[in-house]
Amino acid sequence: MLIVQKFGGSSVANAQRIRNVAGIIAESFLYGNDVVVVLSAQGDTTDDLLEKAAELNRNPSKRELDMLLTTGEQQSVALMAMCLESMGLPVVSLTGWQVGIRTDAAYGSARIRRVDTERLRRELDARRIVLVTGFQGVNKYDDYTTLGRGGSDTTAVALAAALHADCCQIYTDVEGVYTTDPRKVPAARKLEEITYDEMLELASMGAQVLMNRSVEMAKRYGVELEVLSSLVRAPGTKVKEVVKHMEEMKITGIAKDEKVARITVMQLEDKPGTAFRVLNAVSKAGVNVDMIIQANGRDGANDMSFVVADQDVEQAQEALSAYKHVSVDKSIAKVSVVGAGMMSSVGLASLVFEALNDEHINIQMISTSEIKISCVIDAASADRAVAAIHRKFFEN
Amino acid sequence: MLIVQKFGGSSVANAQRIRNVAGIIAESFLYGNDVVVVLSAQGDTTDDLLEKAAELNRNPSKRELDMLLTTGEQQSVALMAMCLESMGLPVVSLTGWQVGIRTDAAYGSARIRRVDTERLRRELDARRIVLVTGFQGVNKYDDYTTLGRGGSDTTAVALAAALHADCCQIYTDVEGVYTTDPRKVPAARKLEEITYDEMLELASMGAQVLMNRSVEMAKRYGVELEVLSSLVRAPGTKVKEVVKHMEEMKITGIAKDEKVARITVMQLEDKPGTAFRVLNAVSKAGVNVDMIIQANGRDGANDMSFVVADQDVEQAQEALSAYKHVSVDKSIAKVSVVGAGMMSSVGLASLVFEALNDEHINIQMISTSEIKISCVIDAASADRAVAAIHRKFFEN
Repeated sequence: MLIVQKFGGSSVANAQRIRNVAGIIAESFLYGNDVVVVLSAQGDTTDDLLEKAAELNRNPSKRELDMLLTTGEQQSVALMAMCLESMGLPVVSLTGWQVGIRTDAAYGSARIRRVDTERLRRELDARRIVLVTGFQGVNKYDDYTTLGRGGSDTTAVALAAALHADCCQIYTDVEGVYTTDPRKVPAARKLEEITYDEMLELASMGAQVLMNRSVEMAKRYGVELEVLSSLVRAPGTKVKEVVKHMEEMKITGIAKDEKVARITVMQLEDKPGTAFRVLNAVSKAGVNVDMIIQANGRDGANDMSFVVADQDVEQAQEALSAYKHVSVDKSIAKVSVVGAGMMSSVGLASLVFEALNDEHINIQMISTSEIKISCVIDAASADRAVAAIHRKFFEN
Repeated sequence: MLIVQKFGGSSVANAQRIRNVAGIIAESFLYGNDVVVVLSAQGDTTDDLLEKAAELNRNPSKRELDMLLTTGEQQSVALMAMCLESMGLPVVSLTGWQVGIRTDAAYGSARIRRVDTERLRRELDARRIVLVTGFQGVNKYDDYTTLGRGGSDTTAVALAAALHADCCQIYTDVEGVYTTDPRKVPAARKLEEITYDEMLELASMGAQVLMNRSVEMAKRYGVELEVLSSLVRAPGTKVKEVVKHMEEMKITGIAKDEKVARITVMQLEDKPGTAFRVLNAVSKAGVNVDMIIQANGRDGANDMSFVVADQDVEQAQEALSAYKHVSVDKSIAKVSVVGAGMMSSVGLASLVFEALNDEHINIQMISTSEIKISCVIDAASADRAVAAIHRKFFEN
């Protein structure tokens, strides 16, 4: 088997953790697998570097920032290589450049264009464990680029796709993907399998186990992912195209996102194109909009509400400066129920509404897709809502 | 003018020092010069990284060590670039790989084979300040290599040679090259100019302003060096092929090396080849030998003494394990007087001996070359010897 394993920054934060991870890698290798490992920068390295940069320049160019930050992963792979060497294992560390991870030129949020496999194959053929810097590549000018948040996951999936790996294991500090946040709902269950689409919906809903970009790429190239813990040796959750859901598992997970705000634009003229112009203005400002509803006002004017991420509120307001009556409500949360099984089931939505009604939680907005039902509710009720829905679906 | 400037690790140790260096670079650039800057890793970075490595592996491979250490200079150039950006100056940072500094495969002590100038020229033509990581390159396998001690000086000289730079400025924490160590001899004078050969003799004698490799390379390619301070704005010392010595300056400098030991092999047979076998054994162990003297013993046997660096004593002893009568004396020092003017002068040696005699310092060994007189004396008298010789030549 050819396995790609990815370990995040906290998994390699110090010598003890590096040794722990080396143990996992060694085990996979000694079972006879070809092993490619992707590592992030150690724990606080990136923050430390950003602090040093801020001392010199509050607004450095993204090119030089990438030049600075890419050193973090290089240190991680070198240190891990030394640890594996001390165990007597054959190993080689490579940077994104050495592998040939070619990206576009968008410093700070580059996209992978191409992955050369020649060097990787050569090292694997020589029966070496290959350690690769996550999060980074080089553009056509031979300048260092970083892939942005969750970039190391993307690197792992890209390498798995390029090498046609049998599996891509993403090691994290959780044991897998759960029906909902286990820190909040003790009855939460670990899922054995989940589809790409379900994972995408859960990820975008704030269950940040995997970044969407890496799941999208895995889906596109058919890379089977496994999310598992670097601290607890137990099977994790597999992310793949088709999964065998147990009969009663109509839904897969429940997620909550509190970092959202509702923006309402009031007293809009009731004319064709009005809604388009509002949404167009916001979208041109680079703000993603979700859960749009429009309500008829009394005097021939309309109100329009939609949800944006907290971090985009200011930009959205700026984009809407031409409108006089704009209100923002940050005290909301979005609770979402996700499941590929939804498509073939009826009455699931009413079960969700029933759960919330039982708890006297008012639903402000609703949106549904083929595999997801989202409700906007008061932020203060979010945890209670998740627990109630979880009871309804998973704890009977 | 095209100027290459090199700043060491202490010159970029923190934000304040980086700003200071940025000021020097900016001034050179704003005078209309093309400026290429070579930087070392920040102050303690290399030691910190070595400490991290030691936690995981007491004896890591040199390849992975180079992979780890090369991140230090990359951070330096990125941070300096950000600082220059904040001053509104056009700048680009490049690693050894990006420049195309190709080395042999000797990790940890690689030698530069070739320097591409295409990228450098392109950036200079675009009127950018170009910052280059010192101390590092890549070998033919595209793996990172480091150049060993003083490597950043070598990088600077190599770039100056490849670009046919008008001058290569080596910024240090001293103001230039002195007739002797100014911390020990307050009357020491800063030299305006010195020849490559004189500099080589002084450097190898422990006056560690410049590493020999960089001076040798500068001599070979005719690169004019200037050694000057990054803290005090004053002309430094120029190192070149031919210099105008003032009439009375028969000698250029006086250096002292206390990190040496005398090894004596006694009771050697008085036969042809005996001396050769002793020296051959030591040299095969990779130990450099200096100042060889042979003395006739009474009973047809000979004694042979020579000087080695302190750090080579054990290896030399091992190489001589076949000889029964070997003694080591570490309490010696080598005091050397260097000057290209010596060649055309007579009586200089006797002035040296006179100075030592006046101080009742016993000379144990003597060696002379065209531009150098070295004396081995008791280590305890070394500072007094240097001061006495300095008085004789420079303070009358």
